[in-house]
This record gives sequence, C-alpha cells and structure tokens, in this order.
Amino acid sequence: MEITGNLLIGAAELPASAGTMKALNPASNAEIEPAFALGGAAEVERAAQLADDAFDSYNNTSLAVRAAFLERIADGLDAIAPQLAQRASLETGLPVAQLEGETAKAAIQFRQFATVVRQGRFRQATIDPAQPERQPRARMDHRLQKIAIGPVAIFGASNFPISYSVAGGDTASALAAGCPVILKAHNGHPGASELMGRVIQQAVAASGLHEGVFSLVRGAGNGIGEALVEHPLVKGVTFTGSEAGGMALFHRAQRRPDPIPVFTEMTSVNPTFVLPAALAARGHAIGDGFAERMLVTVGQACLKPAILLALDGPGYDDLKEAMSARVKAMRARTMLTPGICEAYRNNLHRQQQAGATQIATGPGSEGAWEGQAVLFEVDGASMLEQPSLSEEVFGPNALLVKVADVEQLLAIARQFRGQLSATMQIEQADYSLAMRLLPLLERRTGRIVINAFAHPQEVSYASIHGGPFPATSDSRFTSVGMSAIERFLRPVCYQGFPDEMLPEALRHDNPLGIWRVTEGEMARE
Amino acid sequence: MEITGNLLIGAAELPASAGTMKALNPASNAEIEPAFALGGAAEVERAAQLADDAFDSYNNTSLAVRAAFLERIADGLDAIAPQLAQRASLETGLPVAQLEGETAKAAIQFRQFATVVRQGRFRQATIDPAQPERQPRARMDHRLQKIAIGPVAIFGASNFPISYSVAGGDTASALAAGCPVILKAHNGHPGASELMGRVIQQAVAASGLHEGVFSLVRGAGNGIGEALVEHPLVKGVTFTGSEAGGMALFHRAQRRPDPIPVFTEMTSVNPTFVLPAALAARGHAIGDGFAERMLVTVGQACLKPAILLALDGPGYDDLKEAMSARVKAMRARTMLTPGICEAYRNNLHRQQQAGATQIATGPGSEGAWEGQAVLFEVDGASMLEQPSLSEEVFGPNALLVKVADVEQLLAIARQFRGQLSATMQIEQADYSLAMRLLPLLERRTGRIVINAFAHPQEVSYASIHGGPFPATSDSRFTSVGMSAIERFLRPVCYQGFPDEMLPEALRHDNPLGIWRVTEGEMARE
Repeated sequence: MEITGNLLIGAAELPASAGTMKALNPASNAEIEPAFALGGAAEVERAAQLADDAFDSYNNTSLAVRAAFLERIADGLDAIAPQLAQRASLETGLPVAQLEGETAKAAIQFRQFATVVRQGRFRQATIDPAQPERQPRARMDHRLQKIAIGPVAIFGASNFPISYSVAGGDTASALAAGCPVILKAHNGHPGASELMGRVIQQAVAASGLHEGVFSLVRGAGNGIGEALVEHPLVKGVTFTGSEAGGMALFHRAQRRPDPIPVFTEMTSVNPTFVLPAALAARGHAIGDGFAERMLVTVGQACLKPAILLALDGPGYDDLKEAMSARVKAMRARTMLTPGICEAYRNNLHRQQQAGATQIATGPGSEGAWEGQAVLFEVDGASMLEQPSLSEEVFGPNALLVKVADVEQLLAIARQFRGQLSATMQIEQADYSLAMRLLPLLERRTGRIVINAFAHPQEVSYASIHGGPFPATSDSRFTSVGMSAIERFLRPVCYQGFPDEMLPEALRHDNPLGIWRVTEGEMARE
Repeated sequence: MEITGNLLIGAAELPASAGTMKALNPASNAEIEPAFALGGAAEVERAAQLADDAFDSYNNTSLAVRAAFLERIADGLDAIAPQLAQRASLETGLPVAQLEGETAKAAIQFRQFATVVRQGRFRQATIDPAQPERQPRARMDHRLQKIAIGPVAIFGASNFPISYSVAGGDTASALAAGCPVILKAHNGHPGASELMGRVIQQAVAASGLHEGVFSLVRGAGNGIGEALVEHPLVKGVTFTGSEAGGMALFHRAQRRPDPIPVFTEMTSVNPTFVLPAALAARGHAIGDGFAERMLVTVGQACLKPAILLALDGPGYDDLKEAMSARVKAMRARTMLTPGICEAYRNNLHRQQQAGATQIATGPGSEGAWEGQAVLFEVDGASMLEQPSLSEEVFGPNALLVKVADVEQLLAIARQFRGQLSATMQIEQADYSLAMRLLPLLERRTGRIVINAFAHPQEVSYASIHGGPFPATSDSRFTSVGMSAIERFLRPVCYQGFPDEMLPEALRHDNPLGIWRVTEGEMARE
C-alpha cells in the first residue's frame, strides 16, 4: 500500500493546506520520507460536515451490514500487517515483533466488535407493552433502544501506535456504536496512521457506506485538535495521553455552548500491594515478575506497574534483589520521542528531589534518546508525607516502598488518586488483610488483579481499562473491552409507535432475535 | 410527623448555623410556620464526611437489605401522604389532589427501584472465565460488576415538590445504586422537604444502615450548593431546574481538580408535529388535547408541550379554534413562586418582541402571582428567522406555528436544540412523512411520542426523561425510569480472584441467581 502523505477526508485525498511534516526515526533522529500533509480548521470543517451527513444512514445501518464493515477493516489490517509493523517500528523505535502483535490485536478487536454488533445487546432494547386496562390511567406502549451519540473525534495515542491509534479500540467501538469517526492522527507515526486510515477508508467504500463515516486529519500543534473539539457537529471525544493534554481537551469541550462527552485516559501508576505471606513465600518471583512487566515497551505503557508496596519482613530483601537484578540487566532503549525521553529524565530527577533513593540502574545509554532503567526505593512514612511520589513517571522506572505496618499500608492505599489497575500479591494467609484492602481499591481503581501483573490488557467482555480521575475523566466508562461501546450510545424512547415505524430492534416479533428486557424481564422472543 | 425546621445530618438534627427562613404561601404571600434552619459549608462538610464514612458499607449491602430499605421509604411516604400533600400544597399553591398523586408516584418509584435492586441486572455482571490453554498466552479469569460511584449531591426541584424533590427519582435511583445521598432541599417547599427527609432518615435507622447514607441540607443563596458541588468527597451531582442554574453547577463541577459527573435536566419545549392527514381528520381533538396538557400544573412542567407545528391546510382552523377555546376558559392560577411568575411575564413579552402574535388569553388575573394562560401564533418563516421563538416559556403558554410546506417543517425540526420529548400526530397516510421526520427527532430528543401528548411521564423500564443538550447535560443518561440508576454506577473488573474473595454477584455458583453475561452470552446459571 502506498503512503502518499495526503489527508483522508471522506473518500477524498487532500494535499496540505498548512505545510508538511516528516516522521522522525527516534533511533537516529533522521527524517523519514514522504512528507505528510498538515491541515487545519478547513479540513476539520469538511470532515465534520461529511460525518454529519453520514450520521443518519450509518446510525441506521442494519446490524449485519455494520458487522461486515468492521470485519472488512480487520481483513484489511491483516492484509497489510507486515508493512504496517515495519513502518510503525521505523517511526517509533518499537520492535517489529511487538507491532505485529499489536496489528493482530487490532484486527481481533474489530472482529470482536462485529460480534457485539450482531448480538445487538448494545441496543439495550427494552419494552414496556401497552396496558390499556391499567387504572387509574392506561399505559401506552414504551420501547427503548440506544442509538449513536453522533460524529465523534478520536485522538490517536502515541505509545501503542496501532492498537491505541487509528485502528484502535476507540475507533472500533465508536464505529460499532454507529458513530462516524474523525480521527486526529498522532504525529509520532504518520505513515502507520495513513496505512490504517486507508484500510478503513477502503472498507467504507467496499461496504457501500456514506464516505463521511471516516476521515483522517493531521495538523501541527494544538490547533487542529481544538478545532475538532469545538466543532458544533462533533458530539463526543476520546483521547489517550498525558493528564495535561487530556484535561485541556476536556475543559475545552465543557466550555462549548453545548458541552459534549469527553473520555480521556490519562495517568496511572498501577500500584502492586505485596502482602506478608506472599512476600515470604514468593518474594523473589514477585520482584522479578514485577520488574519484567515494568520494563516492557521501555516503560511507556498506561498499565506499567510503577509502584510496589511491600511490608518490611521476610522476603523483602529477596524481592528487592530480584527487582534490582532485572533493572541492572536492562539495556537502555530508544523511547518513543525525544520529548518523552526528556520528560522521563526530568521526572527521575523530581522523584529523587522528593526523597526517592536510587537502588539500581541499567547500563548507561549511548543513544541520544534512550531511556535508562532506574529503580527507586523509599520508606512508607516518606510516601505519606510526599504525595508527589505517587505520580507517574512515564518510562522504565519503578518505586519500591518499604512499608512499616498494616495501618501504614492502608493509609498509603487511601492516598492514591484514581488508577486504571491495582494488584495484590497474596497467599491464603493474606486473605483477611486483602479483604480490608479491597474496598479501598474498588473506590480508586477500574481493575483489581490478584497474583499477576496488570500488563497486558485483555480485550474481552469483562475487560475494564478505566477508573476514577485522573486515570480517566469519567469513571463510568472504559476505553478497552466490549463495553467501551457504551461511551458512544444514548437512549431513545419510542412511545405509541405502530410496528412498521419501529426500529428493527424494537419490533414486536423481534426479527433480529436479540436479547431484550420485556416488562422488566430478559427475553429473546 | 412534626416539622421542626432542623437540618437532618446523618442521624442528627442540627439547628441553624446561618440564620433561618420561612416558607411562603404563594397564594397569599404570607409566611408559614415554623422557621427553617439554614446551613452552609460546615453542614456540607459534616454530611460529606458521614456519607464518605457510610460508603463502603452501603455500597456493599446485600441486594435484599438495600431493597428492603427502599421499600421502607415507600411505606413511610404512604404513611404521611395526607400530611405531606397538605403541606406541599400550602407551600407551592399546587392542588392537594395533584400532590397526593405525586406522593403515590414517589412511593411506587421506591418500590420499583427495590425490584431493580433485587433483579441485580444493574450490576452488569460479566464473566470471562480463565482459559489456561489459550495460545499464545493463557487468559486469566476476568469478572466485571458495576458499583456505586460514591456519595452524590442531589438538588431537589421546585416544580414537582414531591416526585422530583427529596423523595424523587434521583434519590431513589442513587440509593438503589449504592450511593449515599446528600440532599440539598429546595427552599420553595421546606416543610414538605423535611417530612420526606425524616421518612428517609427513619428508614436508614430502621434498616440498620450507617447514618451517613442520607442527609438533608438547606441554605440561603447559592453558597450551599456550590460547597456541595466542590466538596472533594462528593462524586456526582444531579439537578433539575433552569438552564442557567444547571450550567452554573455543571461548570463548577468540571473545574474541580477532579471533575465529577453532573446530570442536569434543564429546558425543553417538547414540540408537537401535526402531519396533514392527522390535521384533517382530528384537528379539533388535537388542538384540544394539546392545550389541555399545556395547561396542566399551570404550565410549570418539564414536559409541557410548548410548541405545536401544523402544516397550513384542512383542519388548521379547527385546531387553532380548539386551542384558543381551552386557553380562553383557563382561569389564571397561582404559580410556584413570585420569581417564576415574573419570569413568565417577561418571557411572554420576549416572545411578542420576537414576532409571536397573541391569539387567545385566559381571564385576567386578580392574584398577584397568578399566571394567565396565553396562546401565540407565528408563521413558519418567522420561526426559521427567529430561533429565540423556540426557547422555553415556563408557564401556561404555547406557540402555534403555521407551517407553509414539508420542507419548511423539516427545516424547523432541524433547528430545534435538544429536547426531552417530541410528538407526532399522524394517520396512516402520514407515515412516509413521519419516517422522514423520525431521524431528525431521534438526534434531537430523548423520547418520541406518537398520537398522544408527552405529559405525564411513565416511570418504567423503557422510560426516558433525558435528551441532547440543553434538555440535559449528558444525553447518555435519563433522570426518570429504571435506567436512571446507570448515572451512579461505574464498572470494576476483578481479575484472578479466588471465589471467596469475589463479590456475590460474580461468584461461580451465582448465589444471587441474577442474569449475567458469561463468555459473551446471557445466562442465569
């Protein structure tokens, strides 16, 4: 597939209206061909108009047509997988094998959402039949289904350039919901973004859908993102990235004359709590497993386990030694962008200023933008005094906390802000303490893991990649897993409709054969 | 039940810390005994601390205990129904019979939510069992349930002093979800509010729940509401009232260091579209039925049908005459507060300035704060030129729009902002035009009604009282109906848990016998 550098607006290819840019190879800092078109408010305007024009027909596609469209995207991703992984690796410095895995995961995700669409449960079809005899007054027939909220703007993320980018879960779930998508491509991997965008653009055409169902825009600086979030025809926004970036978009969307939903996934340190019996029994294995996960993808993952809390006692030294050994053996590797690498170094300095002691480092870096693995340690009392120690360091770093006693452990748990995940390492003897910790974690995290490490994220029905602020801007939703579709749906009640005017999901004879709630009970008749 | 005028903070009764107020009888403008305590940030602080203390235990009550608690509230409301309706009538000028109906509806609503709690579907229990043999890597056991978001602040509404106030659907659905509630009582009906608050306070005690599950605060001006919305332990807000009031709270909540969900239900004109065959066949009946509903509760309802659009042609004059006759026969009646009556008169003036012609009025008012019924007419072209004509006039007023042709009708439909409801009056011959109108209405309204009038609102599984902005601040939710509970829930994923540590809803043998999604399929095993 050719990479032209054009913007993809509906079925069209548009050249630059605001200059061009080239991708950077972060390993060599060299520019990569070709030049990529940059756009601005004019392209956003055109994409938004097209998306709005497409809305009624796309929101009303049959489930079968919409599912087949999602499967076409999956097939298209499979077809370009080697080229996509190669290009993404060139642009991000991430290993080709990892990016092949991401491509496979992205394709699977589109197929999973095709299944979700066919199942039709996302409609939440609910039927309260007429009760003409009811006293003191008759009840009319009421039927509810969920429909799409409207065109949405999706910001591609930088750290997983395929599975959280143009062809990521946000796009898959929004398209599954019936929302036309305007994708703001991340400038860290413009070539990979274009390849994925072309796959979706081609699938739109092959499925006979309105061209406005998908557009891909790109711009310099924040202007194009701001234009998207402020466009009156855009009705929802998703973003994965920094807290500062996410909150800037969030506040901009809330200041619109008509505020719109924004789901930003931002920051999480994913604390691991090692309870005493587990520490005594498996200190070495836990330290080793934790450090391995912490170093995956050069620590540039939302689910990186960044803080490990262990009660001082038997097993602590084994755990510390195992973590240190992994870190010392970790060769420095190229980070996603020079900016991310610089921020990593500044954050390491900040942690040391706040009282963290450096106990292990990986071999020194020769490359300009390579992240060196660093392990810090601190005692529990300092952790309570310095809440800034609980903040994220994006990169190959973790903080080991030596906790004095159970009360201190619970106090530290209470101090954490919202998290995507938290982990408990426990043995049977730890259950009662774990049950005291559990409600604290339920209030603060979207996912609680026992005896494993948070990474990698499953994409399934029960998956949650969300959590209280600042993990996300709305704890009621998830950005990964089948229920990610709920972000993009709103209910409509149809009252007193003749059968022939009802949407298919709500017709009397249930032609789609989907699960519905009738008179308060689940039924599939 | 005695009305003391105290604030109800947890199990305690607190006297005034910020002066007192008395209720006003809007019919006579006379003060009513007793004096009611006003509080401020100190009471909010105490209530929020108690609510936070109550959270873990209340969020983890068994479904049976929580349902019985809701039923106790219903029984308590029934027990004081005559006193409550009398007191509310004195404070609001609304008829006792209407308020008895509201009390019955409020009690039913608590019983309905008790059923929703027992059904347990609100947990959205979802199970992806472990797949130890999966390639390339094993899948761990993942289980999802929804839990409560935390303590919430609920603002009592003024216009339905029982069923949208202290014992309204917001309180019922938040308590059903597992959220402790801090109720900010509306100063328009402090005595009725106290009575309902005492019923809930007593039910908390009788159910053996933590006292922090419910508090009732009251204050002068906006300070107490602001303190509530800004309190770090408050995790959600609901409000029913004006667009200005709702948006002030919304923006305040979004500016918090940790933004929280706010559901405000604000403004709607609930347009009715009369299509040609229906107009010709039933012009008189439609005009009469519309005007009757528009005048219910002196036009002070969120679901008041305020705008009727009819294509000029056979039946138009009958419709207009029937509407006029109802309006002319409507005796002026006391409005909820002097401020509301004054705003009503100003809005009538605004509509006339914008080009509306007065075609009928009710008999003149002698009482100081009585709202006189007024019917306006305007042509479709003016409606398109003056979007301000589409704005709400809270009170006994409606606007009849004489539409020139179908294209003009569709253009006007496109111009409406978000609505709670829209109605189509149709006959079989109108179906094809109705199907052209339908997608426009789906995008703009939460409920679409055929051949009836929007008021009154059913409270059932398929009910929606929501809609795109400015009908509400988040079109993805409803404030009435069983799915109102979704506003207060967030998902948590439990990964790799031993069965004895899992919440009941997620245990292997499904001890609650609830519907769950297992491997993507509905099941109740």
